[in-house]
Amino acid sequence: MSEDKRTELETIGEFGLIDALTKGFKKKNDSTIFGIGDDAAVINRDDKNVTLVSTDFLIEGIHFNLMYTPLKHLGYKSVVVNLSDIYAMNGRPEQITVSIAVSNRFPKEALEELYDGIKTACDIYNIDLIGGDTTSSLSGLVISVTALGTAKKEDVVYRSGAKENDLLVVTGDLGAAYMGLQVLEREKSVYKANPDIQPDLDGFDYLLERQLKPEARKDVIQFLKDLDVKPTSMIDVSDGLASEIFHLCKGSDLGAQIYDEKLPIDTKVSMTAIDFNIDPATCILNGGEDYELLFSVAQEDFDKIKGNPHMSIIGHFTSKDAGVYMIDKQGAAIKLKAQGWDSFRGE
Amino acid sequence: MSEDKRTELETIGEFGLIDALTKGFKKKNDSTIFGIGDDAAVINRDDKNVTLVSTDFLIEGIHFNLMYTPLKHLGYKSVVVNLSDIYAMNGRPEQITVSIAVSNRFPKEALEELYDGIKTACDIYNIDLIGGDTTSSLSGLVISVTALGTAKKEDVVYRSGAKENDLLVVTGDLGAAYMGLQVLEREKSVYKANPDIQPDLDGFDYLLERQLKPEARKDVIQFLKDLDVKPTSMIDVSDGLASEIFHLCKGSDLGAQIYDEKLPIDTKVSMTAIDFNIDPATCILNGGEDYELLFSVAQEDFDKIKGNPHMSIIGHFTSKDAGVYMIDKQGAAIKLKAQGWDSFRGE
Repeated sequence: MSEDKRTELETIGEFGLIDALTKGFKKKNDSTIFGIGDDAAVINRDDKNVTLVSTDFLIEGIHFNLMYTPLKHLGYKSVVVNLSDIYAMNGRPEQITVSIAVSNRFPKEALEELYDGIKTACDIYNIDLIGGDTTSSLSGLVISVTALGTAKKEDVVYRSGAKENDLLVVTGDLGAAYMGLQVLEREKSVYKANPDIQPDLDGFDYLLERQLKPEARKDVIQFLKDLDVKPTSMIDVSDGLASEIFHLCKGSDLGAQIYDEKLPIDTKVSMTAIDFNIDPATCILNGGEDYELLFSVAQEDFDKIKGNPHMSIIGHFTSKDAGVYMIDKQGAAIKLKAQGWDSFRGE
Repeated sequence: MSEDKRTELETIGEFGLIDALTKGFKKKNDSTIFGIGDDAAVINRDDKNVTLVSTDFLIEGIHFNLMYTPLKHLGYKSVVVNLSDIYAMNGRPEQITVSIAVSNRFPKEALEELYDGIKTACDIYNIDLIGGDTTSSLSGLVISVTALGTAKKEDVVYRSGAKENDLLVVTGDLGAAYMGLQVLEREKSVYKANPDIQPDLDGFDYLLERQLKPEARKDVIQFLKDLDVKPTSMIDVSDGLASEIFHLCKGSDLGAQIYDEKLPIDTKVSMTAIDFNIDPATCILNGGEDYELLFSVAQEDFDKIKGNPHMSIIGHFTSKDAGVYMIDKQGAAIKLKAQGWDSFRGE
């Protein structure tokens, strides 16, 4: 390594780093249809179908805290977050590999709980565990999951397919996973200060479940097929809505406008946010880990989506020059920032 | 987790742990042809072809020591060890995903060196980097690579296809990577005791290259095609020859007999082993990381393999009841133990 230059990782962030590290790579195989830059890579399978590939790390101390994360839930979540990426391509996941690096402080029984959760997710989502690597680590638990899926060629939805005026749609509600984390962190602090006090998690079931045991929107992919709607672009909401909107805008070379009052939030989430002195819009925009789907549809599909209880139309794409804005309840346009969760920045 | 039982990981080892964790998983998708238990998983691609999937972790402090491992070599090796698994199925690797978890002590420039090595391997082996995850870690560097490849259905070679009397063949020579590691560890100790002493690595080029920058035997897969030989079973030598022989014996439900005097070893490796007071046979049997291929061929293919400078016939398969033995230079039969490298046992 050259001694003259040292660029700290926190100054460039995850996406800047990925761009810097992968820019020199050129495609060599005809079978590679799409590589880095979407929820999953796309590989040619046969004349009509593709294979989708996505991979994610879950690192102890960065992505989870074992003080309040049951290992079974962690196993479940580690599968689900990867399946979510396959659904976000409008595909059907079929296989996963799971690799774990684990320190000797974990007994076999702890890892059996982890795999119990992995198996539950595989059973519910109809997935085969086909491989992995199992090794020791010097500190903590590291989980690496790769999901493989399939889709018809004409069904694949990229981040890049949106057009100006396409409607932006998000599934379910947002911000709950983030507020679940805040509740868990508060109780951890209370416990650390006084181990005799029992954690007060009553009434937070929905928030905690969204944080600890999220689901991937397999159902939405089916709803869209049933409605005969093919999204023009799609991404899953893992890092926060704002960050995902920026990914779609970048992919499709567009701007976007969303409406504060259209953003779906559970009442308990907004109440808890206010209790915690957090703006509910911040939970939605920057919270992350909801694993809902954000997609766009052409205006002519409006009637098919309108009033669907699983989907909220939150705005539309604009020209790139128009920028990325949220219109607040007073009608003021607020410029959005993509300050989603970034492990290098600790944001 | 139940408090009444605690089984330490070092008492069961890697393969026992994998068996325990994955035994309850059932195959659900027709596209899954073969899951856990070979060098790569096998997924149906189309009528004539399959997709091969293999994944490996490289963990700082377990699989590599950055005190003497140049990051560029590490990047190269992290790709090659995964490609080796695809070749070991008689397949052709085409894509990889690379995930890294890295602490903030690494500047961007260090990771650029790592990716320089990854890119070099991709260029040499004609591989596309199609994705990955990039995140921070609390300590050290973790690399997870997944390799995808393809093969014609009738070409895939499993561990399970060998028959009694098939010949056991190994490519190249063995033990060099292990002795390279011993040399590096010795110089590290010397340096720690006295940082003013320059490391003495003169004359160890071959050993060091085998440890730090191994190659996968892409060429051998082509040689076998050219010779019109399809191995009856195959595995790559990552954990040591003895361990790999046991994997083939277990997969094919056979025993084996190999001959000490037939084991291929470089002169420099055996000389260095003797200098280090290590039995050269131990380097070969238990050293690992050579990334050569171990395969079996039917007796009628003997003439095609005989005298090939890249391949050594080291023995043959026997019935399961006959056990797994090495015949030493005095003609004595020594029962082999599968004491390959196991990160949980530190062996």
